[in-house]
Amino acid sequence: MKQRMWAVGVDFGGTNIKCGLVDRRGRVVTSLVLSTARFGRPTTFVVGIHRAVEQLAASARLSSARLAGIGIGVPGLVDAQRGVVHMLTNVRGWCDVPLAGRLRARLHVPVFIDNDANLVTLGEWRWGAGRGAKSLVCLTLGTGVGGGLVFHGALYRGASGAAGEIGHTVLDPDGPRCGCGARGCLEAHVGTAAIVRMARQAGVAHRGRLTPEWLAWMARRGDRRARAVWHQVGRLLGRGLAGIVNLLNPDRVVIGGGVANAWALFAPSLRRAIRADAMEIPGRTVRVVRAQLGDQAGVIGAAVLVWEER
Amino acid sequence: MKQRMWAVGVDFGGTNIKCGLVDRRGRVVTSLVLSTARFGRPTTFVVGIHRAVEQLAASARLSSARLAGIGIGVPGLVDAQRGVVHMLTNVRGWCDVPLAGRLRARLHVPVFIDNDANLVTLGEWRWGAGRGAKSLVCLTLGTGVGGGLVFHGALYRGASGAAGEIGHTVLDPDGPRCGCGARGCLEAHVGTAAIVRMARQAGVAHRGRLTPEWLAWMARRGDRRARAVWHQVGRLLGRGLAGIVNLLNPDRVVIGGGVANAWALFAPSLRRAIRADAMEIPGRTVRVVRAQLGDQAGVIGAAVLVWEER
Repeated sequence: MKQRMWAVGVDFGGTNIKCGLVDRRGRVVTSLVLSTARFGRPTTFVVGIHRAVEQLAASARLSSARLAGIGIGVPGLVDAQRGVVHMLTNVRGWCDVPLAGRLRARLHVPVFIDNDANLVTLGEWRWGAGRGAKSLVCLTLGTGVGGGLVFHGALYRGASGAAGEIGHTVLDPDGPRCGCGARGCLEAHVGTAAIVRMARQAGVAHRGRLTPEWLAWMARRGDRRARAVWHQVGRLLGRGLAGIVNLLNPDRVVIGGGVANAWALFAPSLRRAIRADAMEIPGRTVRVVRAQLGDQAGVIGAAVLVWEER
Repeated sequence: MKQRMWAVGVDFGGTNIKCGLVDRRGRVVTSLVLSTARFGRPTTFVVGIHRAVEQLAASARLSSARLAGIGIGVPGLVDAQRGVVHMLTNVRGWCDVPLAGRLRARLHVPVFIDNDANLVTLGEWRWGAGRGAKSLVCLTLGTGVGGGLVFHGALYRGASGAAGEIGHTVLDPDGPRCGCGARGCLEAHVGTAAIVRMARQAGVAHRGRLTPEWLAWMARRGDRRARAVWHQVGRLLGRGLAGIVNLLNPDRVVIGGGVANAWALFAPSLRRAIRADAMEIPGRTVRVVRAQLGDQAGVIGAAVLVWEER
C-alpha cells in the first residue's frame, strides 16, 4: 500500500493532453503537456502516454512499481466499465477504441477512463469546492456547457454513461437553436458562443476578437454594457439551475470551466435568480460555489478515478 | 425472520387515508380506508392508525408480533431520518410533528415515514413498472405533478428530503404562472388544471364539469378536439422529460397518477417528443412506461419502506 502512492491523471482536451503525477491527497506533484495535434490519434496517444508516464516517474524519481494506475478523461462518450472510448467530440479517429486495455497491455498498470466532465466533477468533489457534499451538481462553462453529478456519495454516470448533460436541459423551448439539434438548451444560452452573441448585440466595444475574456476585462473596467451582459448570463444560468435544484435538491452546485473566471461578475445575479425561481427549501439548502481546482481539475479527477476504482 | 412477514403501508391523502397489510412480495393482503376529515389531525391520526393496524391484523388473523413495522407516506415535507412531518400541503395542523416516535411509543413497532411521491416511486421500483431499474424517474400526474428518483439502486431524497420535484422543473419561462410562484413549470403545463384549461380553450364539448376523466372519455369516443388536447399533453410532457432524460440518462421513466389513466391517449406523442428533443444516446436508452400499481402504489411503497429501512 505504502508503495503505491501515486497516480497519473490525464486530461485529454481538443488542444492539449495534460498529464500529471498526483499524490493520494490530490496534489499534482509534477506535470507535462502533449499536443493533441501530434498525440491525439489512438496509436500516437498510447505512445505519448507511455512516454509521459516514464518522464513523470523519472522527474519525481520514483519507480513505476509505485504507480497505482492511470486515469484518463476524454471529451466524448466512453464505456467506463469496459474502458472503451466510443467516440470523441472534437478529435477524429476514435471509434470504439479499447483504450484502457491497450494501455494496460503496454504499461502493465491499471488504467481507467471516463468522460472529462465526470472527472472534473470527481476532482472537485474529492479535493476541491465539492468536498464533503453528499449530492453535487458540477457545471463546466466554456464552448460547451457540461457537467457531472454525485448522488448518494458516488459519481453518477446514468444508464449509458451519458448522465450530466446539464448543457442540454431546456431553458426556453423558443430559445436559440442548440448544436444538439434541440432549441433553447442551457448551452445555447450561456455557452461561449451565446455570451459573445449577447455581447455583440449589447454593442460592447472591442478591437480584434470579442471573447468572454475580453468581455470580463471590459466589465472589470466598469463598462456598463459588458456588466449587463454578465448579469444576463448569471440570470439565465440561475434560471436553468433553479429547475435542476428543484429536481435534485443537491447539497451543492460547483461551477467551473473557463467562463467561471468571470465568477464575480455573474455570481450575484446567478444566486439571485436561483433564490427567485427555485422552491423555498431546495433553494435555501443549496450552496452555489466556484470550482477550486481550475484547469487542474481534470488531471486531479482522473487520478481520483484511479483511487476510487482500484 | 419468518415471524415478521407483514408490514402495514399507509397512504395519507387529502381525502382518504388508505391502510394496507402488505406481504414481503408487495401484495396487499387486506386493506381499509379512513377519512382524512375525521382522522387527518395529528392526534386523531395516531388513534386511527392504531385501530386500523389492529383491524388489519385481526382480519388477517395474525398477531401483532408478526408485524415488521408501519410505513407511512404523507403529502408534504418530512424528515425521513428522524421521522418528523414538517408540514403537509393540503392538511392542516401538521407542523414539525414527531409522528414516527409517537406511533412507535403507542404501537411498539418500527415506524417509518416519507413523502408520498417517494413511496409511490419505491413501490413501482420494487414491485411495479420500475422493477430491475438501477436509475429511475417516477412521475405522478394529477392535480400536482410530483415525482421520485432512484439512483445507484436506492431512493434518492436529496439534501433536505425535497428531491424529485419534477413538476417544478421549468418547461417554458414565459409559460403560465405556477402555484409555486415560478413561471412555466411542468405542473403549470400538464397538471389537472392546465389540462382542463387546454380542453376549454380547444372548445371540447361538455355537460357539467370538465375533467381529465371526461376529456379522456371524449377522446376515446373519437372526439378530435379532445384527442388533440391529449396529444398536446404528451408533447409538453415529452419536452419536459427530454431535458431530464439528458440530465439523468435514466434506465426508465415510470408515469403514474390519476391522469396516467389516459396513457394510451398521450403516450405516443410523449414518446415522439422525447425521441425528437432528447439527445440520441439517453433518448434511445430510456424506456418510458406506465405505472403498474395504480392507486395501491402508495400503500405498497410505504410497506417497501419498512423492509428497506429496518
